[in-house]
Amino acid sequence: MEEYQIYTGGRFFKTDTVLDIRNPYNNEIIGRTWLAGVKELEFAIKHAQSIEKELRALPSYLKYEVLQKIAFVIKNEREQFARILSLESAKPMRYALAEIDRAIQTFIVASEESRRLPKEYLDLDWTPAGVDKEGLVKYFPIGLVGGISPFNFPLNLAVHKIAPAIAAGCPIILKPSSLTPLSTLKLATIINETVLPKGAVCIIPMDRSTGNRLVTDDRIKLLSFTGSPEVGWKMKNQAGKKKVVLELGGNAAVIVTETADTESAVNKCVVAGFSYSGQVCIHAQRIYIHKTVFNNFTEKFVKKVKLLKAGDPLLMDTEISVMIDEPNTKRVEEWVNEAVADGAVLLAGGMREGSFYHPTVLSNTKNDMKVCSLEIFGPVVTLESYDKFSTAISMVNEGRFGLQAGIFTNDLNQVNQAFDNLDVGGVIVNDVPTFRVDHMPYGGVKDSGLGREGIRYAIRDMMEAKILVKNR
Amino acid sequence: MEEYQIYTGGRFFKTDTVLDIRNPYNNEIIGRTWLAGVKELEFAIKHAQSIEKELRALPSYLKYEVLQKIAFVIKNEREQFARILSLESAKPMRYALAEIDRAIQTFIVASEESRRLPKEYLDLDWTPAGVDKEGLVKYFPIGLVGGISPFNFPLNLAVHKIAPAIAAGCPIILKPSSLTPLSTLKLATIINETVLPKGAVCIIPMDRSTGNRLVTDDRIKLLSFTGSPEVGWKMKNQAGKKKVVLELGGNAAVIVTETADTESAVNKCVVAGFSYSGQVCIHAQRIYIHKTVFNNFTEKFVKKVKLLKAGDPLLMDTEISVMIDEPNTKRVEEWVNEAVADGAVLLAGGMREGSFYHPTVLSNTKNDMKVCSLEIFGPVVTLESYDKFSTAISMVNEGRFGLQAGIFTNDLNQVNQAFDNLDVGGVIVNDVPTFRVDHMPYGGVKDSGLGREGIRYAIRDMMEAKILVKNR
Amino acid sequence: MEEYQIYTGGRFFKTDTVLDIRNPYNNEIIGRTWLAGVKELEFAIKHAQSIEKELRALPSYLKYEVLQKIAFVIKNEREQFARILSLESAKPMRYALAEIDRAIQTFIVASEESRRLPKEYLDLDWTPAGVDKEGLVKYFPIGLVGGISPFNFPLNLAVHKIAPAIAAGCPIILKPSSLTPLSTLKLATIINETVLPKGAVCIIPMDRSTGNRLVTDDRIKLLSFTGSPEVGWKMKNQAGKKKVVLELGGNAAVIVTETADTESAVNKCVVAGFSYSGQVCIHAQRIYIHKTVFNNFTEKFVKKVKLLKAGDPLLMDTEISVMIDEPNTKRVEEWVNEAVADGAVLLAGGMREGSFYHPTVLSNTKNDMKVCSLEIFGPVVTLESYDKFSTAISMVNEGRFGLQAGIFTNDLNQVNQAFDNLDVGGVIVNDVPTFRVDHMPYGGVKDSGLGREGIRYAIRDMMEAKILVKNR
Amino acid sequence: MEEYQIYTGGRFFKTDTVLDIRNPYNNEIIGRTWLAGVKELEFAIKHAQSIEKELRALPSYLKYEVLQKIAFVIKNEREQFARILSLESAKPMRYALAEIDRAIQTFIVASEESRRLPKEYLDLDWTPAGVDKEGLVKYFPIGLVGGISPFNFPLNLAVHKIAPAIAAGCPIILKPSSLTPLSTLKLATIINETVLPKGAVCIIPMDRSTGNRLVTDDRIKLLSFTGSPEVGWKMKNQAGKKKVVLELGGNAAVIVTETADTESAVNKCVVAGFSYSGQVCIHAQRIYIHKTVFNNFTEKFVKKVKLLKAGDPLLMDTEISVMIDEPNTKRVEEWVNEAVADGAVLLAGGMREGSFYHPTVLSNTKNDMKVCSLEIFGPVVTLESYDKFSTAISMVNEGRFGLQAGIFTNDLNQVNQAFDNLDVGGVIVNDVPTFRVDHMPYGGVKDSGLGREGIRYAIRDMMEAKILVKNR
Repeated sequence: MEEYQIYTGGRFFKTDTVLDIRNPYNNEIIGRTWLAGVKELEFAIKHAQSIEKELRALPSYLKYEVLQKIAFVIKNEREQFARILSLESAKPMRYALAEIDRAIQTFIVASEESRRLPKEYLDLDWTPAGVDKEGLVKYFPIGLVGGISPFNFPLNLAVHKIAPAIAAGCPIILKPSSLTPLSTLKLATIINETVLPKGAVCIIPMDRSTGNRLVTDDRIKLLSFTGSPEVGWKMKNQAGKKKVVLELGGNAAVIVTETADTESAVNKCVVAGFSYSGQVCIHAQRIYIHKTVFNNFTEKFVKKVKLLKAGDPLLMDTEISVMIDEPNTKRVEEWVNEAVADGAVLLAGGMREGSFYHPTVLSNTKNDMKVCSLEIFGPVVTLESYDKFSTAISMVNEGRFGLQAGIFTNDLNQVNQAFDNLDVGGVIVNDVPTFRVDHMPYGGVKDSGLGREGIRYAIRDMMEAKILVKNR
Repeated sequence: MEEYQIYTGGRFFKTDTVLDIRNPYNNEIIGRTWLAGVKELEFAIKHAQSIEKELRALPSYLKYEVLQKIAFVIKNEREQFARILSLESAKPMRYALAEIDRAIQTFIVASEESRRLPKEYLDLDWTPAGVDKEGLVKYFPIGLVGGISPFNFPLNLAVHKIAPAIAAGCPIILKPSSLTPLSTLKLATIINETVLPKGAVCIIPMDRSTGNRLVTDDRIKLLSFTGSPEVGWKMKNQAGKKKVVLELGGNAAVIVTETADTESAVNKCVVAGFSYSGQVCIHAQRIYIHKTVFNNFTEKFVKKVKLLKAGDPLLMDTEISVMIDEPNTKRVEEWVNEAVADGAVLLAGGMREGSFYHPTVLSNTKNDMKVCSLEIFGPVVTLESYDKFSTAISMVNEGRFGLQAGIFTNDLNQVNQAFDNLDVGGVIVNDVPTFRVDHMPYGGVKDSGLGREGIRYAIRDMMEAKILVKNR
Repeated sequence: MEEYQIYTGGRFFKTDTVLDIRNPYNNEIIGRTWLAGVKELEFAIKHAQSIEKELRALPSYLKYEVLQKIAFVIKNEREQFARILSLESAKPMRYALAEIDRAIQTFIVASEESRRLPKEYLDLDWTPAGVDKEGLVKYFPIGLVGGISPFNFPLNLAVHKIAPAIAAGCPIILKPSSLTPLSTLKLATIINETVLPKGAVCIIPMDRSTGNRLVTDDRIKLLSFTGSPEVGWKMKNQAGKKKVVLELGGNAAVIVTETADTESAVNKCVVAGFSYSGQVCIHAQRIYIHKTVFNNFTEKFVKKVKLLKAGDPLLMDTEISVMIDEPNTKRVEEWVNEAVADGAVLLAGGMREGSFYHPTVLSNTKNDMKVCSLEIFGPVVTLESYDKFSTAISMVNEGRFGLQAGIFTNDLNQVNQAFDNLDVGGVIVNDVPTFRVDHMPYGGVKDSGLGREGIRYAIRDMMEAKILVKNR
Repeated sequence: MEEYQIYTGGRFFKTDTVLDIRNPYNNEIIGRTWLAGVKELEFAIKHAQSIEKELRALPSYLKYEVLQKIAFVIKNEREQFARILSLESAKPMRYALAEIDRAIQTFIVASEESRRLPKEYLDLDWTPAGVDKEGLVKYFPIGLVGGISPFNFPLNLAVHKIAPAIAAGCPIILKPSSLTPLSTLKLATIINETVLPKGAVCIIPMDRSTGNRLVTDDRIKLLSFTGSPEVGWKMKNQAGKKKVVLELGGNAAVIVTETADTESAVNKCVVAGFSYSGQVCIHAQRIYIHKTVFNNFTEKFVKKVKLLKAGDPLLMDTEISVMIDEPNTKRVEEWVNEAVADGAVLLAGGMREGSFYHPTVLSNTKNDMKVCSLEIFGPVVTLESYDKFSTAISMVNEGRFGLQAGIFTNDLNQVNQAFDNLDVGGVIVNDVPTFRVDHMPYGGVKDSGLGREGIRYAIRDMMEAKILVKNR
């Protein structure tokens, strides 16, 4: 069993509270870390503040080198990282490796963006009052960032806060999920080997009440939270004067039209629906299929779903494994059962074995069933047919959420209609809502979030404009 | 006495509650309007929502025409606008006219920016996952905006919310100050003559508790508040899921260095210190002067201050008149008296006559005196000398606020140091902190605010990114 | 008969050489101007150089006012401008009015862009060598511009050089076509009433050999030529050290696919093929139609063409009139006759009456016929069918030219293929190649030109980067 | 003696014409390559054209990998590269190493920019004509690039053409200087190991008449030349239809004002005046010093110059060595002698030993002396005093050239005046004109060149705008 100490003030610590981490697949303890208490958090904040000025003055070539070096070392330890991540989260290795690759890319993009921080230059002589004046707008680091990241992408979603903070020149205190802190703490050991001022990055697991101080403490200037809508929105109103960015969940949908390449749509939708058991913010939960291709699509889809290889996440050919824990699995079971009781038809799955929930396909659902209207965060997909394209758009738009949506079509008008009318943060043409590359703006509308991540966008939230009005 | 009905849903209304507006200079009633109640606000919100889609679909050439036409009509009625504004606010005509000119410019800039809404186009093939994909990021109107504007720039600070809302395609409900609503309601009559969908802009005076629904109601997607720090920050934590922009006040400072053009510095500082009796967010409240030029500067400054022409705001040669009301005047009197009791030296002024407070210059102040540490929002300026430049910077940075700062110097190093180290939203070289042109980013750090106005910046806050991930 | 004196050095002149302008429709003299000789050109150059510095120092609000005022006055004299333009060029009034409207818009766009001249701000500390340095890149006016504009859009194509020159702060000497100089000289009288330094804009008709000095003289820093490919490319190699922008012609094509809205395509193609008798650089000369819709399209198209209303350009219902002169008309006649002799089939037109050439539709043409491979610049359109979309693309790409192309389709893949593979400066989806709005980048590849116009793009060519490497 | 074969069509070749390369320091043959003839050039052009489409279709992640890999391998072979470069050019090792480091950085910057190629997205509905249309402007590779690079930065100036060509997706044929082709040919062996399509980059030494085909051949779409003004400008008028970028030389100047940090100015000016014996385009040839600091500066400067360590370029402590060849050395000798004969005063140097010219300082020069008015390209610096700042600016501006200028000052006004009025491509504050980092825009005005290099700027010249006008 490996031990990972918490990381704060440029040092590794144990605390009084042990936190043992278990493999959700077999419940074995696979690693140990410690929970930070108020004392350790206070130390982190004070230390972070003390190096704020030093950090802010770092030339871009040093920030670049730091971020490149981190990417380089993760690359060298790619397999080990994936293994830890897979163990702590029960994420199948194929997806764990993909996540590591994305984390590497996230650091590389941040390194490049650290050289391209926002800045503007303006003529001010638009009126006589501004004659012979010019404005230089630079963006300065906003100050200490508090980051809270979830279990489902234990590394890359933490990196989406850490990497831009380094690029922007902000110290950051990151609270990883208490279920899956190990891969992020392993990252800490790499960060610690760079020339970054000690204390610039702190990674400390905390219980919820301690962690909530990241929300309420005024010394923290930006709260960046990725997690559930319920928790996120509550934070916003406790946040005092600080800025808040919320990356929450949703019940993402796909539209498969009559001009879609069905083969490709089926293949992509199966992955989008069941990879990591649907525990993905942009998991393809609802698929709306044009009536003329509904039967064809459904048949192929269900067939593929039934062939999904379940098993030990550490095996490379495993496609689906257990969920993160049994309570969540039971919740999914309950929602599906409720739906079936209310008239939904089960086309595949619908069974639970401990923390494993069989890949499940439903049809004949109603909009107000939980499997449709709430974020299922489990291996469940609904298939429904539609007639008119505008109806499909309305169906996608129903409900509280709006993260991303996929649409399979070769029809120009439909693409335009979808982009204009879908209430989401991203419309993915001929691909699934789970599509994300790490430099694109990413985030939701309605109850799915506030603000955008994607390195450049995250950096901008971590900086504050200051104008120099100069004489010419 | 002119009557100005409230404007909502594209119609002009009276309500049950009369609001008579008085000239602060002589307490005469100069106009009448009405307060909207919950019912009228509800009507405004519903109506605004009903035309949201129509507004969002307006081509830019129509938004442009609307904004240009408004600017054109204000220009034609410049004198009348200035007169009403002067009457309701006791702002001397010379400054009232300047404000009208700025409001015209604000609309013109908004018309131009309505054609240049943010949009981006991204390659996504930075990794194999994104090959043959491209990203188009458009910004869509965020939805209904709630705007709250203050008494001190009754027209232009309202326009800084209305004009970008039109440009962005967002409906807006604007609550003007109940002291000075007339000029904004006059604007309503112009807006009503354009092709803008009825209900797109509502201008309704409300009492504070009704107005607070703009803060708490979830149908409003952005709250844009300009006013006092106390009120503003409280709103942020009542705002639910909506975005919040706060333009608050401060105790802005100037540094006059040994290489300054003293003549020019004195002239500009007198205006910055006493125009509209200091009732300006970026009023030059504190002036730090290098010890080698302190005596010279002070002598000239005090001499000029004593020559300021007081009187009826409607007269073109009046430079200073009464404050907005007697309670505020008494507050200023109290703070000055406290300071003097605590050792501050009175170099000019220090007397109150009703709502008129004599232009006042203090020296030998301490940082924790209210005249230094709080926003005086009155005709009071402190002059202090400094020795080292870095000390002057520290003095400016003391306290809770950080809006803008002026620095008079011809020294390159000092400019760089000031820009890097002053904790403010804007550093103005060889000019006063009151410098603002309407297209530049404007706003404060620390307790002075959240976010930036200045048309293009305000527009961006009123829009939300949506990405279209396309196949190539 | 109205007289228009030449405009140089801020004054209006006659010279020794009278230039009488005739109405191509009835050969009547409709106006008189004068040709500038070497002496007048020399005066213009010297004068322009003498005010270069003054012009460069104009604050943007003054350039803005100048450009807005010009737009305003043209708008007020819209009908008179259109009449002169129609008279000198035989352009039907409906198109003459449209050109005036575009010229107004071109000035307005230039006014707005004069406030948004390019500038950049760069971090330079990407390596240790650049630590503590920052780069400010401003663009300065390049100096005296020589502009040469053609007969076919006598006003707006001259304005596309004059307006950006004013916005950029460059003096300009413009040589209008000797056939159609009057509308541009009328513009001179408006420009002369602005606060622009006298001599900043010179408008002088010249014979070709005098005009060629704009090409060869080293005091001119940019040559901006719009005209025929033969003349343009020759200039490039005589231009010495100056920059050269060439806006030349082409044989623009349209693709009408099987998913096109045929009705709309026919209507737009008839206008694109025959407005101003095809004397338009992006005239739709070749139309390639998918074989499944070829017959339907052709039938409707020919029917519409035959209904085109010919007549006096001054009448509002005239759709087509004479060409610019008889030699050009004879050239068109000859090319069509050659084509027919070589196997082309005449579906409409094919007759000449003086300078009027009947709207002509050909089919069964070959690629090497002049009507296909050269710029016909006359009222002639070829219709050919195609089978595979990739073949249609190849057909469009054949030959020396590449200005713009239209494609009517609702198929996403075809749009992508067209954009990737058509060798042109612009691909217009569901519209004709003649589509142009004045702020978009416009210009050709291959033999169709060098560089782009469209205000912002033209301005950039008129400016030169200079970097200030600053200490922070 | 190492052999470096020429590189074309993805293969390494010998030809019929041997080209032996000598060490200018001792005249020993240090390597052998071959000259390409017309046949080999023709092969290169044909091959480059044949892979143009493949190259253009490369996703950015592959171009990125190629450029990163090249940078990585050069870094690994840094010493070997520097040694070859030092041997072929007699550049002292300390400067050779710096050049290698810059070449690495140039590739890295190009890798990053390959992901950020220019693209724009425009609303077109500024007039009714554009309603419901949007414009997407992408930049496509312009086609085959011809590059010609000089002896003085044998590697990095070639890389400034090769790296952006790869990033832009253009094939390139590069002709290195026939005196110093080896380091660039060594680079070819690295490029050949990447996945770049074979033939995308060709590196072939040619004699001048063969090389001139890069200027005249119409299949080449862009000529990018770095070298002498005489040769460069002649090319422009032989270039046919292709675009031309010229990076030429100058007689760069420095202004040392009364507020300068003299110590720092002297140190930097000595390096800028004598590194690589002044064989640098932005060599600090003329230094203008305020009269109050002239004596102080001059004394220190001359003293430092006399201490410059001359010797074998391969030794790390050598600061100055021989010039590239004896004819050039004799030319420098002649110019200095002429100046002295005409009244210039020799403060240091003035002697020639073979190809070594002693570091030379002159004063009392006149503007029309060759040492002032022409590009000396040798180890000669003139020191002159000035009185008024505006005079210093005029002195810098005299003559035909305008590349970069340095100014040492702490006076804000002087910085502004310098930036507004110096006719150069770059003004360097508190540093020397030789300052260049590889991502900044770099290039001259007047006779010093046409266009700008600096990766992003070079890339833009290698691409051509195409607009897609879309329906919404």
